[in-house]
Amino acid sequence: MPHVERFSISMNRELLKTFDELTARKGYPNRSEAIRDLVRNALVEERWADANEKVAATVTIVYDHHTRELADRLADIQHHHGSLVVAATHIHLDNDNCLEVVILRGLSGRVRQLAELLIAQKGVKHGRAVYTTEGRDLW
Amino acid sequence: MPHVERFSISMNRELLKTFDELTARKGYPNRSEAIRDLVRNALVEERWADANEKVAATVTIVYDHHTRELADRLADIQHHHGSLVVAATHIHLDNDNCLEVVILRGLSGRVRQLAELLIAQKGVKHGRAVYTTEGRDLW
Amino acid sequence: MPHVERFSISMNRELLKTFDELTARKGYPNRSEAIRDLVRNALVEERWADANEKVAATVTIVYDHHTRELADRLADIQHHHGSLVVAATHIHLDNDNCLEVVILRGLSGRVRQLAELLIAQKGVKHGRAVYTTEGRDLW
Amino acid sequence: MPHVERFSISMNRELLKTFDELTARKGYPNRSEAIRDLVRNALVEERWADANEKVAATVTIVYDHHTRELADRLADIQHHHGSLVVAATHIHLDNDNCLEVVILRGLSGRVRQLAELLIAQKGVKHGRAVYTTEGRDLW
Repeated sequence: MPHVERFSISMNRELLKTFDELTARKGYPNRSEAIRDLVRNALVEERWADANEKVAATVTIVYDHHTRELADRLADIQHHHGSLVVAATHIHLDNDNCLEVVILRGLSGRVRQLAELLIAQKGVKHGRAVYTTEGRDLW
Repeated sequence: MPHVERFSISMNRELLKTFDELTARKGYPNRSEAIRDLVRNALVEERWADANEKVAATVTIVYDHHTRELADRLADIQHHHGSLVVAATHIHLDNDNCLEVVILRGLSGRVRQLAELLIAQKGVKHGRAVYTTEGRDLW
Repeated sequence: MPHVERFSISMNRELLKTFDELTARKGYPNRSEAIRDLVRNALVEERWADANEKVAATVTIVYDHHTRELADRLADIQHHHGSLVVAATHIHLDNDNCLEVVILRGLSGRVRQLAELLIAQKGVKHGRAVYTTEGRDLW
Repeated sequence: MPHVERFSISMNRELLKTFDELTARKGYPNRSEAIRDLVRNALVEERWADANEKVAATVTIVYDHHTRELADRLADIQHHHGSLVVAATHIHLDNDNCLEVVILRGLSGRVRQLAELLIAQKGVKHGRAVYTTEGRDLW
């Protein structure tokens, strides 16, 4: 059973109005949820500064599957770090290009290093990681 | 058959040495690949400033699956934007928490709006999008 | 006389506690001010996506003043865009290196272009812009 | 006398063409300088991850000078950290709003903390720091 607290904050009327417009534009159900998202983002960002937090991450890479041995190399790297890799999803963008998302879990320092290694492979056209949380430590 | 050009650039010896160290630390096979990655990142960032580019994206969200109706709501939203959603992968982080990655394709303006809508749902603890490319326009 | 509204938001107790710790660590006087800062940041970021907003910006550049003609070139560029440049502060970091901060005002599209031009000059070792607001439109 | 090395990199012709266009649009004198900027940015970002590097920074804040005691408080904080503060430039945006840029030098951990403290003050409408370098360690 979650323990929820209510507290009030004061805000200039115009600022609140402008923020409510942004909130609606982004599809938030209400102002509270938009503010909680800003708060949680700030916390997740700070947490990743520490190399020994237990975290989750996803790595998105786009590559041409004709690139010599790249698919094999990506698979090898993932198997070699099997304890960090949870799953990978692969889609075909067109005859040449694939997008792959790899889901990682583990200590932040090692997860970041593996994410950077996947992105660094020759033949990867674009790669980006999302550093997120295992959820337990966020409400 | 890709057309590759070679060109030379000049760089202060110390700058080059420091960059080579960073490159090795991140796992790049060589300096050229690290530089190409910096170049491609700069291009993908600029491209997303235009709302009418054909793009791909992934949305990573972490949530508590006990949150009332959230899983249903997330599924509804994805079905409602079926032409933009390619695939979704779901993993169980623990008894309470899930991580889901949704792969999107379409025009950048609409893809961004859908990504923001998924992240904005009440009960999503942390959400982040990776805005990437369909690959065709990047080499 | 500013019109201030009070409204209440609900937040999980643990989330609030963790955020209060971050707030204290960063030196905020209270939780309300930390939340208002998150809100204002989100608004300023969105505003800069439009090229025709009236904005302010600062450009920080670090360079070696022995670089041939760089100081002259930077001054020329600033004079040539006199209507956008408000002031510049220059400090000497050591025998070789200077840091200069240039304050700009004007329409966002033109301010951004000038900021990029200053940073792009050969001999500038590091350059970064802060895109901010004229304040009137933020509370 | 700087030691400059030349080395060649290979790049897909289309990628190079697209990058050259971006380079021209941003006002870079040539491709080499644009690439060196990407390299230096990557290095400065990594360096700030360490709390004990000697660095420089600028803090840009926008505030309403009618806010009770804010100007005094900002001045007090700067004096209290006199060994970190090099200079401050203040401009009047309109009857109410000011923009102030504070230049800081020192160890990265302490500089960051002071930057965050200035931004955290109640009444500051928008604040952002640029974390840069003393230049000696960048070429």
